[in-house]
Amino acid sequence: MNNKTIKFSRKSAPEKSARMVETIVGCKWSLTVYNLLNNDINRPGEMVRSVEGLTTKVLNACLKRNIEFGILEREAFNEIPPRVEYQVTKFGDKFIGILNELEKLQKDIDNSHC
Amino acid sequence: MNNKTIKFSRKSAPEKSARMVETIVGCKWSLTVYNLLNNDINRPGEMVRSVEGLTTKVLNACLKRNIEFGILEREAFNEIPPRVEYQVTKFGDKFIGILNELEKLQKDIDNSHC
Repeated sequence: MNNKTIKFSRKSAPEKSARMVETIVGCKWSLTVYNLLNNDINRPGEMVRSVEGLTTKVLNACLKRNIEFGILEREAFNEIPPRVEYQVTKFGDKFIGILNELEKLQKDIDNSHC
Repeated sequence: MNNKTIKFSRKSAPEKSARMVETIVGCKWSLTVYNLLNNDINRPGEMVRSVEGLTTKVLNACLKRNIEFGILEREAFNEIPPRVEYQVTKFGDKFIGILNELEKLQKDIDNSHC
């Protein structure tokens, strides 16, 4: 029977995307920023004014990290005064969808005996 | 205008479920075990025989961790010889679904310029 056994090989993990989850979840403001964007608050000044405790410096670091991951994109409009807006990319949409699933799962954990 | 601004508060992250992702993705064999279970290979002996490089000791540690997280459950049948089988819980199904989404996202990352 042994020599009839189908052999499976080790399945490698989605390490890069898991690391994204790790970094973004560890980032204090990313989820808040997604929430703001979802409410059409997409200009940095507006963002800072809308959230208690959020500073321009911290927001910029957060936006930068999200752009590096390809979750958000920055659009600069050639206007006077200059206007800059942020939006979620298609890739970012999928990623945020996964975070939402993780949030639902978290509720399952919180409601269980653990 | 400032005093009309709706205030958003900081959105907290699903830390427990994200930590689960971190641990399971960091675990060398969990994804392989899910794959085995998906192929109806649910007895420890069969699992070890089916995967090159997988030992009983390492498998047991992996199964134990997954049981602690509530992803897998162990069923012992009162038979001679005794039979033990593992299966994915409902909660585990959701969790593995999220890992599958992360895997798709990983492909997007691999196919992009990054």
